Amino acid sequence: MRTSNYLLSTLKETPNDAEVVSHQLMLRAGMIRKLASGLYTWLPTGLRVLRKVENIVRQEIDNAGAVETLMPVVQPFELWEETGRSEKMGPELLRFTDRHTRPFVLSPTAEEVITSLVRNEVSSYKQLPLNLYQIQTKFRDERRPRFGVMRAREFCMMDAYSFDIDKEGLQKSYDAMHDAYCKAFDRMGLEYRPVLADSGAIGGSGSQEFHVLAESGEDLIAFSTESDYAANIEKAEAAAPSNERAQPTQEMTLVDTPNAKTIAELVEQHGLAIEKTVKTLFVKASEEVDADIIALIIRGDHELNEVKAENLPQVAAPLEMATEEEIRALVGAGPGSLGPVNLSLPFIVDRTVAVMSDFGAGANIDDKHYFGINWGRDVELGQVEDLRNVIEGDPSPCGNGTLMLKRGIEVGHIFQLGNVYSQAMNCGVLGPDGKNAILEMGCYGIGVSRVVASAIEQNHDKYGIIWPDALAPFQVAIVPMNMHKSEEVRKAAEKLYQELSEMGIEVLFDDRKERPGVMFSDMELIGIPHTVIIGDRSMKEGNFEYKNRRTGDKTPVAMAEIVAHLKTQLA
Amino acid sequence: MRTSNYLLSTLKETPNDAEVVSHQLMLRAGMIRKLASGLYTWLPTGLRVLRKVENIVRQEIDNAGAVETLMPVVQPFELWEETGRSEKMGPELLRFTDRHTRPFVLSPTAEEVITSLVRNEVSSYKQLPLNLYQIQTKFRDERRPRFGVMRAREFCMMDAYSFDIDKEGLQKSYDAMHDAYCKAFDRMGLEYRPVLADSGAIGGSGSQEFHVLAESGEDLIAFSTESDYAANIEKAEAAAPSNERAQPTQEMTLVDTPNAKTIAELVEQHGLAIEKTVKTLFVKASEEVDADIIALIIRGDHELNEVKAENLPQVAAPLEMATEEEIRALVGAGPGSLGPVNLSLPFIVDRTVAVMSDFGAGANIDDKHYFGINWGRDVELGQVEDLRNVIEGDPSPCGNGTLMLKRGIEVGHIFQLGNVYSQAMNCGVLGPDGKNAILEMGCYGIGVSRVVASAIEQNHDKYGIIWPDALAPFQVAIVPMNMHKSEEVRKAAEKLYQELSEMGIEVLFDDRKERPGVMFSDMELIGIPHTVIIGDRSMKEGNFEYKNRRTGDKTPVAMAEIVAHLKTQLA
Repeated sequence: MRTSNYLLSTLKETPNDAEVVSHQLMLRAGMIRKLASGLYTWLPTGLRVLRKVENIVRQEIDNAGAVETLMPVVQPFELWEETGRSEKMGPELLRFTDRHTRPFVLSPTAEEVITSLVRNEVSSYKQLPLNLYQIQTKFRDERRPRFGVMRAREFCMMDAYSFDIDKEGLQKSYDAMHDAYCKAFDRMGLEYRPVLADSGAIGGSGSQEFHVLAESGEDLIAFSTESDYAANIEKAEAAAPSNERAQPTQEMTLVDTPNAKTIAELVEQHGLAIEKTVKTLFVKASEEVDADIIALIIRGDHELNEVKAENLPQVAAPLEMATEEEIRALVGAGPGSLGPVNLSLPFIVDRTVAVMSDFGAGANIDDKHYFGINWGRDVELGQVEDLRNVIEGDPSPCGNGTLMLKRGIEVGHIFQLGNVYSQAMNCGVLGPDGKNAILEMGCYGIGVSRVVASAIEQNHDKYGIIWPDALAPFQVAIVPMNMHKSEEVRKAAEKLYQELSEMGIEVLFDDRKERPGVMFSDMELIGIPHTVIIGDRSMKEGNFEYKNRRTGDKTPVAMAEIVAHLKTQLA
Repeated sequence: MRTSNYLLSTLKETPNDAEVVSHQLMLRAGMIRKLASGLYTWLPTGLRVLRKVENIVRQEIDNAGAVETLMPVVQPFELWEETGRSEKMGPELLRFTDRHTRPFVLSPTAEEVITSLVRNEVSSYKQLPLNLYQIQTKFRDERRPRFGVMRAREFCMMDAYSFDIDKEGLQKSYDAMHDAYCKAFDRMGLEYRPVLADSGAIGGSGSQEFHVLAESGEDLIAFSTESDYAANIEKAEAAAPSNERAQPTQEMTLVDTPNAKTIAELVEQHGLAIEKTVKTLFVKASEEVDADIIALIIRGDHELNEVKAENLPQVAAPLEMATEEEIRALVGAGPGSLGPVNLSLPFIVDRTVAVMSDFGAGANIDDKHYFGINWGRDVELGQVEDLRNVIEGDPSPCGNGTLMLKRGIEVGHIFQLGNVYSQAMNCGVLGPDGKNAILEMGCYGIGVSRVVASAIEQNHDKYGIIWPDALAPFQVAIVPMNMHKSEEVRKAAEKLYQELSEMGIEVLFDDRKERPGVMFSDMELIGIPHTVIIGDRSMKEGNFEYKNRRTGDKTPVAMAEIVAHLKTQLA
């Protein structure tokens, strides 16, 4: 490709509204342009990378035995009513009516469509296992689209759906997709990890997320220092403390704490160790509980894990904190003075809190705390659960090593759905025993457009993007210096361009009438892995200059050797 | 691909609601399934063909120097207001609002989006010419979607947009795309013709359509018997008759015609030659005319060309016929008794009618006609235009030969838009003279999904589809007979499958436990060009059987020669 026939569209300045590096660099490198909030046009350079991701994903999913289909972006709303997901998805599911006022949605995912297809097309267990996928435009009407294509409204996703006669079959299909994901992300040259995850709104039994590791990631991942264990912090279990609760050594005393509305203030003003404090959080209770509000108690320096809380049968989902008004109406004190002693509500205690002794908590009276509280003696312990986020240094729930935390960007998710959808939509086949068998489903997604952004988060420097070879929009850049003045440079550049193109190498030939500095910085910004600089001076010595984007090394290479040199670099 | 891992989904019966052959065969061959009116899921076999079309189109458009992009399916409505097309498109443009009640549309085409992009990204004539395209999902909310993917609501389209500094540049870009289209359709093995076309709602100066010729086509194309001239009947000029008007030989007489409401009745009951009759049609006038209705007069055996009529400045667009009520209110007679003599409205006469003499027409009195009318003597001729559809035998407007008519399916359209959109959206660049120059645009579409259907309309027999090699979902089918009983057959089939696959040949290996007859008819239905039949009996003689789908020929081929034989067939 010659830049003169191309839409390079690089920008010198970082656009104001781009917060994360990948968004900034995708705009600056001319990969995307915003059309409206959460809607992006992929410019030629961006699309070339998107297609590389798409093709690697397609090949590996094909190799795993899945078969490609293509489903409409527009789906009838009635299918979403059949599974009850029309409610669950909320306003992210964009609804509209056609000219005949029939209701439709823009597809955010396709469990309903594919299950409806399979229940019509597959009638016997002999046609199984079956894994159907598509790489198609998806739409989620995010409340606050942000970070460019990282959290856009319209995006490109690979979604696959496996159908098996039984759970063993599902496990096989799931494992094959797990392997295919690993192969795909390996080929892309990304540092990633499969991690245990919560199944969320999709439903089903087990699931794993694939995260590209990057400091800018929105998710926290917990890893064991000693094993393969890795889990999204949403899911990572805080193992029960191995120590027993210590015997009480203090009396419980009521203390005036007029200026301590927060744990930090309590610790600072009253000399309490933070590990000797607890936080009492009031949340909406589910219908299982004979009260509107239930309290969750965690250690002062810990954070509530909202997903773990939501998954408790006693807690309403989605999780909703009680308002100050509701709290005051219930206990007559504000949120800064709550605690388990003399509490008139049901409460659930975190595993760590359950082994604390001689600790401090709000007295359910404004401006007062109890110090020296002990379970059993001062208040009954009751139900104990894992309520908190793990922290670095926690023992790994696998039993080996301790946990460390890293940030990740979720680029893939695989689910064992089981029969959640197939049951709701009556998707069964004639089994080997001659009876109707409801199918066991898995579903599998890769955020193709998000992979592009996450690869940049992991691979960039102050000059721009540093593409892994497999994802680069072009493999080689040719930068001729002052070609429009030097016939020799022009000839050499044209010859090399032709030679490399004929070998099937993707070359960007910068034939613009620009200063060399502008061309160099554009090629660095775009992140082309290998650049050949052609100039009068080095040619007099019989050389071109080769530059490696990742290492930054510049090497003179004999003109006759340049093709061989590039072949070695690309291998 | 093994059928056991695949979703074959062939049907024995022709589904009731499929009217045209391509729709029937696409359903029966397991290529598509209906999700809702005008919405189809592409099953694996269909998608393989769709991708073949897509890839050929992509390669040829790339070769023509266009650069691929990807624009969102969801577009802000405000862009459509900028060009005024929001009105023109009517209810085919599907509108909806997002969660923040901002208005959007589903993209039926992307002139607005691309023009908005180019006005931001391109600032100098030095960056031109530029031709940007995408292959992307489109949506048109057709009032009556029909014929499967031929006229679906959601479909796959290649749309390209060229930007040039002047009209010469536009002509070059247009010609390059014309050539690219020819190369693409040639490669697909389709019988097609580029034909002159009306520009319709897209606007602009000149345009050509590409039609796949097929008896089931919705369009009529006029061809010259002697030259390359070809035009959509909408556009084909009915050349002015070369003969002069004959002198009157009859007096004009008022005749009672109580039972002649139609031309056919008039001819039958009164012995008039149909070439001596005219039809007078009342249509809504445009604002240019000082009347609500204007009359159009064509010969009794001719048909009004609605597009030609609409393009007249005196006629309102879209064309609307007057109601019987309106006609009676104006002339006091019904639509079966209208004519030019004593007509109180303005009228326009077709070229053929202008040279008629001694002809009959309604008298604008119920149940009465004038016979022996002559222009000038009985009524003034006034404005003459080309108003009718051409018919077979008409002289070709190119001056060479006569016209013949064939049916076609429009699969592509190329337009010289000029500055219609660039002017409305202020898309200009700094020209060589240092002044702002509004760009000259072209736009170019190929209905990728419609190409698939039209290829079937042109290539089928009573057994199913007969794919041109370049579009076939698989190149070769392997049909082993009773493989589950004969280990020899199984081994030979597996070996051949592996050999061909390793050569990069796309093979469908029918490893189902089905009767040979079922497998043969499925492979014929799907239309795989080359089939190898492996059976005990022929193997005893050292042969496989090769079957060619198009010719129907079956040939024994020595087992050791089969790969070479297939290579020759595929070359």
